Amino acid sequence: MSDEARRKAGEEILETLLGGTPQRGGALPDDFLDMTVDHVFGRIWARPGLELQERSMITLAALTVLGRENELRVHLRGALNLGIPKEKILEILIHLAHYGGWPVAVTAMRIAKESFESFDKKQQRS
Amino acid sequence: MSDEARRKAGEEILETLLGGTPQRGGALPDDFLDMTVDHVFGRIWARPGLELQERSMITLAALTVLGRENELRVHLRGALNLGIPKEKILEILIHLAHYGGWPVAVTAMRIAKESFESFDKKQQRS
Amino acid sequence: MSDEARRKAGEEILETLLGGTPQRGGALPDDFLDMTVDHVFGRIWARPGLELQERSMITLAALTVLGRENELRVHLRGALNLGIPKEKILEILIHLAHYGGWPVAVTAMRIAKESFESFDKKQQRS
Amino acid sequence: MSDEARRKAGEEILETLLGGTPQRGGALPDDFLDMTVDHVFGRIWARPGLELQERSMITLAALTVLGRENELRVHLRGALNLGIPKEKILEILIHLAHYGGWPVAVTAMRIAKESFESFDKKQQRS
Amino acid sequence: MSDEARRKAGEEILETLLGGTPQRGGALPDDFLDMTVDHVFGRIWARPGLELQERSMITLAALTVLGRENELRVHLRGALNLGIPKEKILEILIHLAHYGGWPVAVTAMRIAKESFESFDKKQQRS
Amino acid sequence: MSDEARRKAGEEILETLLGGTPQRGGALPDDFLDMTVDHVFGRIWARPGLELQERSMITLAALTVLGRENELRVHLRGALNLGIPKEKILEILIHLAHYGGWPVAVTAMRIAKESFESFDKKQQRS
Repeated sequence: MSDEARRKAGEEILETLLGGTPQRGGALPDDFLDMTVDHVFGRIWARPGLELQERSMITLAALTVLGRENELRVHLRGALNLGIPKEKILEILIHLAHYGGWPVAVTAMRIAKESFESFDKKQQRS
Repeated sequence: MSDEARRKAGEEILETLLGGTPQRGGALPDDFLDMTVDHVFGRIWARPGLELQERSMITLAALTVLGRENELRVHLRGALNLGIPKEKILEILIHLAHYGGWPVAVTAMRIAKESFESFDKKQQRS
Repeated sequence: MSDEARRKAGEEILETLLGGTPQRGGALPDDFLDMTVDHVFGRIWARPGLELQERSMITLAALTVLGRENELRVHLRGALNLGIPKEKILEILIHLAHYGGWPVAVTAMRIAKESFESFDKKQQRS
Repeated sequence: MSDEARRKAGEEILETLLGGTPQRGGALPDDFLDMTVDHVFGRIWARPGLELQERSMITLAALTVLGRENELRVHLRGALNLGIPKEKILEILIHLAHYGGWPVAVTAMRIAKESFESFDKKQQRS
Repeated sequence: MSDEARRKAGEEILETLLGGTPQRGGALPDDFLDMTVDHVFGRIWARPGLELQERSMITLAALTVLGRENELRVHLRGALNLGIPKEKILEILIHLAHYGGWPVAVTAMRIAKESFESFDKKQQRS
Repeated sequence: MSDEARRKAGEEILETLLGGTPQRGGALPDDFLDMTVDHVFGRIWARPGLELQERSMITLAALTVLGRENELRVHLRGALNLGIPKEKILEILIHLAHYGGWPVAVTAMRIAKESFESFDKKQQRS
């Protein structure tokens, strides 16, 4: 598979997940942004072995227990865009309180509440 | 829901997942073992919001990125008992290398290989 | 022990520790809030094997080295409400710099300073 | 306070806690071993702001939730040497399951069981 | 080496790295600030076994993968003051995405962007 | 740059660092092994922005503070193969005790001692 094919595959996933590809020239060095698009999204997320919703769920699980708050926000938006119901997202966080500890779950729930509200506002506008 | 009902629900999940409930008198204090059965399995895993296979997958994700090797071994066995295909488990680990870093994925893959072999041996015997 | 008895025990501990029980309908799903009150506080914190001040100290230790900043803020308030002297809290953080690394201790100290000031203001008002 | 005074203070604490000071020429570079004795034990553990048992308990808490298994083993021995009852140590681990997650508590309980047995054997011999 | 000599050595390193020593009476207890200056900077950073730039680079690496955002900000400033080029700092972060996971690298890149801008502004003013 | 060129670049780095490329058919899924060779080594380690020794040092720093023991063993061997002196490796670990905590440094020092001995034996044989 060529880099161009991967880039395209990555951009399609990013469109579905986050509504577009981040622009070059931001905080991420261009090289790193490129490999995020073509490697992480175009080569990994595009693999057939897991449904997109499944990838989203395990990504949420990883980000929650590791306490990666910024990225969690991004992937909560992604999960909602993929149509994962809010109740299911909260159920994942309740479950994870027992594997990563209460504090990471509580923090994730606060972030989820904000993400849900912001998603709902955006839906109403469109 | 009474504690007895939860205990029973927990024991059923543990039967499905791990083939039985750990015996009292081992390394875990009895009180803690009890609350593991009735709270973690009987109250959390038994909730209807997620399929058992989904709970297994997010548990694997959490244990992998946190590097909890002993528990990962237990829940890899659980995942296989639930019928999650080996290829799908490995796909989860490949995905997580990008969120928790290569080292946690590589370690989880080594443990997975051992778990797969031990599961296969047990299947052949029965 | 019935769930009601645990709920009551949990609410009493929360009253002592934080001046009350968080209300339903906030960021935490009601189910999760309930199990936080009746399981974490009513079943765990209420156990006789450790003094409340000891539970507070080991909780601070865990939250500090894990870098769980939001929860640390909550439990610093709890520690002050239980009458643990500020000097003792800071001594814990100095100690932990050597087990969790300087950065987690420094961050905890900054949060402690804010918590101490906010606690003092509240005391003056009442 | 001179370095010599700190070295002596550190060696006294190590004698109480672990029955002696590790010898130079082992895995730790001599310089690092020296600063462990005179700084960590002679300057930190020797400070008056916390009882030795309190320092031991928060150290156990930190090592448990961080999953530092080797050091946990050392400080479990230290806790027993200081006279902290086994039931109290296990109570700490039950508590921490809720802050660091079930897996770190379960692993610590397995290590504690081994430490308790090895401590008991040593007691019987002497 | 006397404590005074270490204090002086630590202050010199801090002058080079951060343009001065933090004042007593802030968030850090005075005792802890003192041992940060004389032990961490005067005894460790002052050791001859590594160049200052090398110490800076491994410190950045540790802070990035551990997600210690406040301290990372401080040491990014330090790295720039030591003359480590921005491109090299970003290269370190791209590398570490593969060992600590994408999320810690992305967060560090956002902080680096802010640190670079703030450093450039300060340079222009002087 | 084509995948083939990256594969070749990755294999060259792996030859220098570890004396060869791991064989397919081991614990790592072939796809993952391939992307480790062509992406992590061929695309990242092969970038010109850092010397190989610098990449090795920051990798050691990351693995040490994260407590990734298996991978640390691999990269300690890599560091020795690149000609980084043992004293310098130990100096890095002494430094990191203050950023990731004493326990991760002590564990890394024990692993380093074993790696050094195994490296020396291999040198004598050849």
